[in-house]
Amino acid sequence: MRAYDIIMAKREGRELSAKTIKKFIADYTHGEVADYQMSAFAMAVFFRGMNSAELAALVDAMLYSGEVLDLSAIEGIKVDKHSTGGVGDKISLPLAPAVAACGVPVPMIAGRGLGHTGGTIDKLESIPGFNTSISSADFQRQVAAIGACIMGQTTSIAPADKKFYALRDVTATVDCIPLISASIMSKKLAEGIDALVLDVKFGDGAFMKTAAQARELAETMVGIGQRMGKEVVARLTNMNQPLGRMVGNALEVKESIETLKGAGPSDIRALTVELGAEMLVLGQQATDVDSGRSKIENALDDGSAFSVFEKMVEAQGGDVKSLSDLALLPHVESVYTVEASQAGHISGLHAESFGKAALSLGAGRVRSADLVDPAVGLEVLVEVGDPIEKGQPICRVYHRGEKGLEACLQQLNDAVNVSHSPVVKEELFGQRIA
Amino acid sequence: MRAYDIIMAKREGRELSAKTIKKFIADYTHGEVADYQMSAFAMAVFFRGMNSAELAALVDAMLYSGEVLDLSAIEGIKVDKHSTGGVGDKISLPLAPAVAACGVPVPMIAGRGLGHTGGTIDKLESIPGFNTSISSADFQRQVAAIGACIMGQTTSIAPADKKFYALRDVTATVDCIPLISASIMSKKLAEGIDALVLDVKFGDGAFMKTAAQARELAETMVGIGQRMGKEVVARLTNMNQPLGRMVGNALEVKESIETLKGAGPSDIRALTVELGAEMLVLGQQATDVDSGRSKIENALDDGSAFSVFEKMVEAQGGDVKSLSDLALLPHVESVYTVEASQAGHISGLHAESFGKAALSLGAGRVRSADLVDPAVGLEVLVEVGDPIEKGQPICRVYHRGEKGLEACLQQLNDAVNVSHSPVVKEELFGQRIA
Repeated sequence: MRAYDIIMAKREGRELSAKTIKKFIADYTHGEVADYQMSAFAMAVFFRGMNSAELAALVDAMLYSGEVLDLSAIEGIKVDKHSTGGVGDKISLPLAPAVAACGVPVPMIAGRGLGHTGGTIDKLESIPGFNTSISSADFQRQVAAIGACIMGQTTSIAPADKKFYALRDVTATVDCIPLISASIMSKKLAEGIDALVLDVKFGDGAFMKTAAQARELAETMVGIGQRMGKEVVARLTNMNQPLGRMVGNALEVKESIETLKGAGPSDIRALTVELGAEMLVLGQQATDVDSGRSKIENALDDGSAFSVFEKMVEAQGGDVKSLSDLALLPHVESVYTVEASQAGHISGLHAESFGKAALSLGAGRVRSADLVDPAVGLEVLVEVGDPIEKGQPICRVYHRGEKGLEACLQQLNDAVNVSHSPVVKEELFGQRIA
Repeated sequence: MRAYDIIMAKREGRELSAKTIKKFIADYTHGEVADYQMSAFAMAVFFRGMNSAELAALVDAMLYSGEVLDLSAIEGIKVDKHSTGGVGDKISLPLAPAVAACGVPVPMIAGRGLGHTGGTIDKLESIPGFNTSISSADFQRQVAAIGACIMGQTTSIAPADKKFYALRDVTATVDCIPLISASIMSKKLAEGIDALVLDVKFGDGAFMKTAAQARELAETMVGIGQRMGKEVVARLTNMNQPLGRMVGNALEVKESIETLKGAGPSDIRALTVELGAEMLVLGQQATDVDSGRSKIENALDDGSAFSVFEKMVEAQGGDVKSLSDLALLPHVESVYTVEASQAGHISGLHAESFGKAALSLGAGRVRSADLVDPAVGLEVLVEVGDPIEKGQPICRVYHRGEKGLEACLQQLNDAVNVSHSPVVKEELFGQRIA
């Protein structure tokens, strides 16, 4: 079929064969299908969707458009986690070493932040010297030796997805569940993993605003996994308030280190334990989620998770001393404290507003070419449900000066809601889809 | 609004303001909006449609993307006709001079054939020397002096439509009623006309396969005319069998000359009279359609229409002698006669198959850069409803040799249906929309 006929078939809601989809994606990657044809196709997919057979073919085509790592030389079942992105979500940092400490190898390729959501790679790079641009050979060696490695995306992984995503980004076809699913799954399966745990966020600070949308996305990705012969478990989690207390790169590293030492905010620990337990079950190092939870808790409490993290940082060129002497991490001198303007109960801490507030300090990127400031960020001092007095500190702003601070405070204006009556905090965990 | 936001708004079914649409089309014409954004927008329009206010803005934007002729110096109400394209449709050739002979100036910019449908410009160019590439100044002078001019499209007329159409043609977004309507109306209104008669074809040989689709297209275009302050009348006409007997450029000129001399096939004369009557009413040279019909009939019968045609041919450099000595028109020596393989009644003469048969002889274009052969074509010797004997001639093929003939006969295999029981011919005229 010619590109024209493929667009027409999708527009008319006819099913495309796996062979047709694979040829179409290959031709697009090589420039034989034009951008203007691919964007029309993407818009037709937005309206018509793709069924599970079409999606598996699309993932397969994007996956094999580039390098697919072969981790078969590494013993054990290789399991990764992917989060759809949130505010204050630093879970990968404590999670990967904790799971590796329990005997499941974790090969993780992570992304950078864009807009109001952060990225794992930016957080790790705030550790002085930490190198996330490593070769796939070194990546494999490190997973074999230490049990975990987190590296940035390379140009050789799923180039078709990279090209297609950049096009979707300028043609209003990003927020399309089949295309999001295919994009995520093609990148993750290119890591050479055997199984995957998905943390699909819903709420104010997430891409999916409702639990129903998040569920559809999760089901679509789990379905792709099934078709491709990979075990995939998805957990829906709440992103109506920031995860943990810290939002900002080095600040989130500090919070991750606390968690790796058995402390840290309760939601960060709970999510690390829950996702880690799922990974241990998939990696056959726990018989069920309950025993998986105990193993992850032990790894956080007995120092074994932290020890893997130290080895990761050392192997990737980072300054291990900065993990115990936190003053060696990037930091700023200027701290501004936001105080409550009225008494009552915290009824809302809008994750998206906190994300945008951190962004305006320089902690994130407006455009993908922007540089991030590793030191700036926010510390949220309250949780939803907390009673509060007028004048009580609710947030600390770690900033570089008036300009960023002012924009940040503007964003924070809308970030906190106070109610007269008591409020119950929303549950962190939603549905489990497997 | 940025291009991204405009695509998103259309995708979500929100109405776009006239200002937004005009800016978007202007930016596209100048290359500031990319092809891949415009094609995604077109696909969103396919699914979401455009309301009459949006359409008027789109037409206005495409219309004023280039030169808009000013015919105000020419006395009278300038009226044109547009047909959505059919097989054997040579109506413009007798129509324009007949209407001009009755006192209504006809400034007509016409197109070339593509695929199985023919084009007025190709037909006229089969008259030796006839020039359709003339300046807009000469065009205006000829309309003023003779009352009619038919010229080809220029690059200065509606360049936005040209660019957009070429993009739609490769992104499966051509058959979208709002976009078809806007494309036709922007080109027609750029002629500087005051009123327009539309011949919207339906059936096998037409772009719109059903009368319902044709009606929707007609209503959309009439609606645009209303919004833009131009009187527009649409007639739906049947294109399930070829119009007239001839399909092919010089052959259709011959048939047009017969019609201009008061003879010709009955359907060609009837359609010329009907559309001409509508044009005379719009041009205020007839008080109603009935008296318009009489005037057009008279112009065909008394030689005045033919006399205008002669002047047009002369003014545009054509060989006037070829209009009386038809042997001077391009012609071929080889004629093949297709005979009926069984006795019965002609129940179908599929216009699209006849169009494709003529195309395979070289009478039309597969790609827009192809050259047409003016001499080749078909002469259909029967009509739907005719009783037929086995071995009776049903079609003459005017060809250049075996290769084209063979492909043509293959197409003609499916073109003719014969039934055992008597058949009634379909009505030529459908609804009138004003």
